[in-house]
Amino acid sequence: MNETRKEPAMRVTRRLCDYLAAVRFHDLPRSVVHAAHRGVLDWLGCVLAGSRHPAVDRLIALLQEVGGERPQATVLGRKLKLGVLEAPMANGQMGHALDYDDTHLGGTILHTSSPVLAALLALCDHKTTTGRNFLLAYACGFEAGVRSGQASPGHHEGGWHITGTLGSIAAGAAAGKLLGLNAQQMIHAMGIAATQAAGMQQNRGTMCKYLHAGRAASSGVLAGLLAQRGFDSSEEIIEGERGFCRIYSDVAAPELLVDGLGARWEILGNGHKPYACAAVLHPVIDAMIEIGAQGAVDPEKVSAIELTVNPHVISISGVAEPQSGMQSKFSVYHSAAVALLDGAAGIAQYTDQRALDPLVIMLRRKVRVTVDESLRKDQARASVVIAGEKHQSTIEHASGTVDNPMSDNAIEGKFMANAEPVIGLERARRVRDLVWTLEGLTDMRELTALCG
Amino acid sequence: MNETRKEPAMRVTRRLCDYLAAVRFHDLPRSVVHAAHRGVLDWLGCVLAGSRHPAVDRLIALLQEVGGERPQATVLGRKLKLGVLEAPMANGQMGHALDYDDTHLGGTILHTSSPVLAALLALCDHKTTTGRNFLLAYACGFEAGVRSGQASPGHHEGGWHITGTLGSIAAGAAAGKLLGLNAQQMIHAMGIAATQAAGMQQNRGTMCKYLHAGRAASSGVLAGLLAQRGFDSSEEIIEGERGFCRIYSDVAAPELLVDGLGARWEILGNGHKPYACAAVLHPVIDAMIEIGAQGAVDPEKVSAIELTVNPHVISISGVAEPQSGMQSKFSVYHSAAVALLDGAAGIAQYTDQRALDPLVIMLRRKVRVTVDESLRKDQARASVVIAGEKHQSTIEHASGTVDNPMSDNAIEGKFMANAEPVIGLERARRVRDLVWTLEGLTDMRELTALCG
Repeated sequence: MNETRKEPAMRVTRRLCDYLAAVRFHDLPRSVVHAAHRGVLDWLGCVLAGSRHPAVDRLIALLQEVGGERPQATVLGRKLKLGVLEAPMANGQMGHALDYDDTHLGGTILHTSSPVLAALLALCDHKTTTGRNFLLAYACGFEAGVRSGQASPGHHEGGWHITGTLGSIAAGAAAGKLLGLNAQQMIHAMGIAATQAAGMQQNRGTMCKYLHAGRAASSGVLAGLLAQRGFDSSEEIIEGERGFCRIYSDVAAPELLVDGLGARWEILGNGHKPYACAAVLHPVIDAMIEIGAQGAVDPEKVSAIELTVNPHVISISGVAEPQSGMQSKFSVYHSAAVALLDGAAGIAQYTDQRALDPLVIMLRRKVRVTVDESLRKDQARASVVIAGEKHQSTIEHASGTVDNPMSDNAIEGKFMANAEPVIGLERARRVRDLVWTLEGLTDMRELTALCG
Repeated sequence: MNETRKEPAMRVTRRLCDYLAAVRFHDLPRSVVHAAHRGVLDWLGCVLAGSRHPAVDRLIALLQEVGGERPQATVLGRKLKLGVLEAPMANGQMGHALDYDDTHLGGTILHTSSPVLAALLALCDHKTTTGRNFLLAYACGFEAGVRSGQASPGHHEGGWHITGTLGSIAAGAAAGKLLGLNAQQMIHAMGIAATQAAGMQQNRGTMCKYLHAGRAASSGVLAGLLAQRGFDSSEEIIEGERGFCRIYSDVAAPELLVDGLGARWEILGNGHKPYACAAVLHPVIDAMIEIGAQGAVDPEKVSAIELTVNPHVISISGVAEPQSGMQSKFSVYHSAAVALLDGAAGIAQYTDQRALDPLVIMLRRKVRVTVDESLRKDQARASVVIAGEKHQSTIEHASGTVDNPMSDNAIEGKFMANAEPVIGLERARRVRDLVWTLEGLTDMRELTALCG
């Protein structure tokens, strides 16, 4: 535990922050900028679709009551502005509210964009920001958040909802970069953000899971703005003896915070969800849709559904009898059933009504799951017996993962489907076109205004 | 790990919240009400004294910039009002800013009042509240926070700054009680508060340590207000498989959450600090003051200072060469030196200047510390050789602890010394008189207005 102290040369937090403070937009590989475009477009659609969620209504009603309407930062899709610390809470929760937002799958299962982009958009309304600086800050937030998770290998297994914890660090670093902090201030921004990092997996299936993303975004904005004003923190917030990688994880690997820094960009490991539920369920859904596509499925005639999956499927998404749409997003049983019945796993498949639908319940009770540690998180095998006939499917790489990514067209399609009901076809198209050419934008308020 | 699941009868979070939602002011023993009076008076003085701290200026400047002045909740001692989520951040940080606020010493080292009272006062400005309901909510917050710590025996040792973590839970339960939540809503308030619980010991000696208290207060207010509006959470946030006592502690003792509930009141275990530094240093300071009282000490003639202390003194307060006032509050070496020289350990002994004073530095380098696991946290032995003569002192119970409490008069004296420079003698006297008769107050705004 004392290795770091004995070897001050390690100082990984400082090395990461030196890099993040120095990196410029033209240092970003073209592939990183492209991944950032995709991330922004996908996330904006998720926020707009999530802006109608009942848990969001409760949060926003409260923020309006205690804060009043203040013309500082746009709450997307709600024709509303709130304070710079409050809008990120709303937008972050909205982005995550449907479990439809992007997922990083390289050593973490982090939904990076909800905390990071919610933090950044509020600051863009607060301070004139170019599209380039926005994209750069987004990529920097990704590095800080994902790498802090990699430096803490036991973090997710330990029971943390990492979108709350790592999301806070990611949002703080992104906010710091957007504000143009120097290396010393960036260390403090990370320290202030990390020391607010919170969110328990115990709250999966409750409204709190979504609040975690909003709270992380707001904590990140606070961290960036405080660091800018000279508020300090530990200089070893990740590697220190009582720092993040020690106390949020039973195993510490601080050196991974800076491993391949500048050569490897974590945003390239970002996956986009074709389905509105936990990412680990996606290979199962792919398999069910493939089997269902062979002909209309009469649920009465299905005698067995057997799934073989990575252990995370059960540890994250093992809810057997979901009682609500929120819970059904973490049920492999529900997801297999709706995907087989509907050939889809979109927003409509994860409503309260669908979770309580007798046909779905009948079918999901036929699902048997076997865990196989040799399967990756993006792999699954499925076998369904329909009218005595056995149908099989093996998925090597689930759709929406790095090895089987959604195409740009598919992401556009998802965005339009999410955005159009909220901001209308015309504005949705303008947002889409703007996002693909974001480097040319001189004031990000043009984008937030279109999504307002 | 699965015991809780197998034995749903445990449901300790529900049992605690059933009790907290049902308890009434007339259920409180007189001793509890008296301890609450003492706690409020001591804390108000600490906030007022802390209201001039430079780190507080930075936080408030930021909150004013992003929030604007809003006439919702009083920031004490600053002639300022902020929003209901923002004022607690300022007041909580101010209360803790000098490490002078109260400390619970029964199985935790929790500074309960800064997060709890900062949360409550903001809600008192938001909603007309009687003195009785305020005192009741304060006692309830104490129960929730301290008991969550007792249910998580490895929590403090694990590296958490518990004033941030347990403080968030305490503030959430207190806010919930003040808002009159029912048992179900109270469960959610605790769940929303606990899932925001954060603060790392890594940040000791930095401004973040004090932010933890303010952030906890604000998170608690958010939790109470959200729960009131139907925002939900896990119903087993403490005992659940991935709940607080599992993931914030390597040992879980969920049953302690409700042990002796209603028969034992944790606020009776609250200690008040005569000295403006870490509570574990107080027995050493008592010993040094006792030895120094035997005659003026010439630091040149001191040849040895030997201390024997509980291990926490070094793990919490082992800074050998503090470079600032903030760091010196966690230096047993500095504290022993200033107490011997000045016969005091108040705000004046923990300034930046004093930390860098050559005489203090010379003296503190003569301090040798031996750890003795058989000593309690309120015990210490000291031996000082001055001009060849050995002086000894053994402290059995440090001043300000439950077994050697500050008298009501001493707490009044501390309050007046803290408050008078900020709000003047006349108002300080009125606050003092009002606090001792708080049960008769029909609107707590009378108190906040006097401290504004």
